[in-house]
Amino acid sequence: RVDGARRWQSLMDMAEIGPGLRCGNNRQALTDADREGRDLFRSWCEDAGMIVGIDSMGNMFARHEGCEPDLDPVMTGSHLDTQSIGGRYDGVLGVLAGLEVVRTIRDMGIRTRRPIIVVNWTNEEGTRFAPAMLASGVFAGVHRQDWVYAREDAQGRRFGDELSRIGYRGSEPVGRRRIHAHYELHIEQGPILEVEGKDIGIVTHAQGLYWLQITLIGQEAHSGSTPMPMRRNAGLGAAQITDLVHRVAMDYQPDAVGAVGHCDVYPNSRNVIPGRAVFTVDIRSPDLTTLRAMTRRIEDGAVRIADDLGLGIEIGLAGHFNPVSFDADCIATLRAAADGLGYSHRDIVSGAGHDACWINQVAPTAMIMCPCAGGLSHNEDEAISRDWAAAGADVLLHAVLMTAEV
Amino acid sequence: RVDGARRWQSLMDMAEIGPGLRCGNNRQALTDADREGRDLFRSWCEDAGMIVGIDSMGNMFARHEGCEPDLDPVMTGSHLDTQSIGGRYDGVLGVLAGLEVVRTIRDMGIRTRRPIIVVNWTNEEGTRFAPAMLASGVFAGVHRQDWVYAREDAQGRRFGDELSRIGYRGSEPVGRRRIHAHYELHIEQGPILEVEGKDIGIVTHAQGLYWLQITLIGQEAHSGSTPMPMRRNAGLGAAQITDLVHRVAMDYQPDAVGAVGHCDVYPNSRNVIPGRAVFTVDIRSPDLTTLRAMTRRIEDGAVRIADDLGLGIEIGLAGHFNPVSFDADCIATLRAAADGLGYSHRDIVSGAGHDACWINQVAPTAMIMCPCAGGLSHNEDEAISRDWAAAGADVLLHAVLMTAEV
Ligand SMILES: NC(=O)NCCC(=O)O
Ligand SMILES: NC(=O)NCCC(=O)O
Repeated sequence: RVDGARRWQSLMDMAEIGPGLRCGNNRQALTDADREGRDLFRSWCEDAGMIVGIDSMGNMFARHEGCEPDLDPVMTGSHLDTQSIGGRYDGVLGVLAGLEVVRTIRDMGIRTRRPIIVVNWTNEEGTRFAPAMLASGVFAGVHRQDWVYAREDAQGRRFGDELSRIGYRGSEPVGRRRIHAHYELHIEQGPILEVEGKDIGIVTHAQGLYWLQITLIGQEAHSGSTPMPMRRNAGLGAAQITDLVHRVAMDYQPDAVGAVGHCDVYPNSRNVIPGRAVFTVDIRSPDLTTLRAMTRRIEDGAVRIADDLGLGIEIGLAGHFNPVSFDADCIATLRAAADGLGYSHRDIVSGAGHDACWINQVAPTAMIMCPCAGGLSHNEDEAISRDWAAAGADVLLHAVLMTAEV
Repeated sequence: RVDGARRWQSLMDMAEIGPGLRCGNNRQALTDADREGRDLFRSWCEDAGMIVGIDSMGNMFARHEGCEPDLDPVMTGSHLDTQSIGGRYDGVLGVLAGLEVVRTIRDMGIRTRRPIIVVNWTNEEGTRFAPAMLASGVFAGVHRQDWVYAREDAQGRRFGDELSRIGYRGSEPVGRRRIHAHYELHIEQGPILEVEGKDIGIVTHAQGLYWLQITLIGQEAHSGSTPMPMRRNAGLGAAQITDLVHRVAMDYQPDAVGAVGHCDVYPNSRNVIPGRAVFTVDIRSPDLTTLRAMTRRIEDGAVRIADDLGLGIEIGLAGHFNPVSFDADCIATLRAAADGLGYSHRDIVSGAGHDACWINQVAPTAMIMCPCAGGLSHNEDEAISRDWAAAGADVLLHAVLMTAEV
């Protein structure tokens, strides 16, 4: 079993970097805080005898050598970046659990045939640069690197420039590394495991997602003196579409979710009818047919709302992945590890996207989840117990050992 | 009649200061651009032989002496500040028409018994510091000056500090000046005069307004992994209330309008359920009973929406004025001036709020409107013809001469 106390201390040390407003973190991708977090992670990896490679997307690969260095390595990890109002565990738990796995193996003098790589994927959250899981997407061949380099944050700063600025634009080409198997430990970010009192979720599937970025074009006009029939109110269109998204998601739940989390109206002045609104619809389902049906209803409905209100409309895709089925062998290994350790577990579908969803396209992959308090995530109050964290890391340790071949 | 060409040139010169994105202006209150505009206005006034006084709200009073300096002056003017996407005429037209009236009187060697004061009221738009008509409100005793000094813009900069920073915190106490009568010329900002082919609108009334600033408190949570029934989506609440405001306004139109122009959701991230939304409802009607009924329906409906969605709600007042009836004598003078000059005119209700609405509480006041193209205002495409501008200034000139007594 891993050293739970050391592990917890690492989590708390990392949480010192990029403090949030209250108790969480704001360590968004490619900020100074991200750099600081990466530096700390690198120093820990080097202290544990690992060699850290950095690719041109800023992905960090800390390699623990195997007895047979030519065999494909077992990879594990997650991401160190956070939301602007993020918790201390989303992503971080998986990266530091990987580090703890290697520390434990070293402490115990265990040698594995295969090398083990602990990975920190760049810009998983998608908060600063959309879409989410950007660098694992390039690794898996889903996105082109130069397209990602040109992505801009809300201030117009480009991904590639910011990556260079923080000193993490490595020279290693992206996606070259061979992977025997990939495991990601993550907090559930939903309520199921805690409610059912399970120690471990074995993630068999993940929901698919569409991020529809919608721009409505109306006409700025005076809120007092413009007669109602003359108005072309882009903010009203955004409001009606936001409500439509909710109604569509309610029709399909519990097998789907939907919301608008991002919305900007222009010029955002109390006495100006908004002439433009830009917002993103987030819809998800584990079922591709459902996801497509929702997308169609929302797109059709949005066009109808825009027409009714005299608005121009553009619908772009700010992110998309299909529902994922993880690798059966990896899943079997995780179940065996949990059973062997005596942890209660159940199969679970991930509501969130994860780097593992992309890596699953290029290597056998599966995920472990541990409960989080009240199912709360993307919130500074995100919380887990030390026991939950320890159980997840133990299962990861055993799965890695089984796969890396002792 | 005034010198239309000189007048137009002054409008164009002022429009050079604080350019907007395209063809309009962004010369918001107490910015560097506002200072520049004020400096230019002051130099023009001094060139026309006027003495410029500045009160502690930054209101600028350019005084043209009368033959009997002890008589209460006739005041005219408007505001030089603009929206962030403002036009060239909203406010500016009235200030520069006042200047042109004095220039014309001087050119013609006319002497009036009463002094004439051309005024530039600070922060009429309310874009940067809410509510609108802030400094004329202090002048009229509606707001307390220290309350206004503490008002903050979106960046948390305070009104009082910004007023000092641009060098326009004068020493004259606010509201001391006596006023015999006050006239404000303004563009209509609505479509009626142009559609009906009238040269001049004689403003008999103005709509009342409520700005209800609503804060909804939900809970930030993950947009993918949080089950629909667990969500407390403050952005959804803002959307439903925005739609409610529209439906209520449609029920009462054409005797009312309503919209949400300002809306911020937090943390404004694509994959985070908004945990907070702050937005402002703008509702107006010339009829106080209607305005009160709308307010009640919206407040009640908003509370119900918040309850249904599990949200906390706070409703504050970011601005308010009751419907206004302007002074019968001033109105009669304006009608006589328009008739005398042979301009077609009609009575009109102002859809917007104006500094004249507050000054009307402390001195006999009325307003002149001239048409604007397509009724468009609070938009950089705001446009007027030179003839419209000239007609408005001519009526103002004659009304001022009649009231200041030649
Ligand atoms: N796990 C996680 O929060 N990922 C962010 C991408 C998403 O929105 O699902
Ligand atoms: N005239 C004008 O645009 N005033 C701004 C205050 C309002 O919203 O009515």
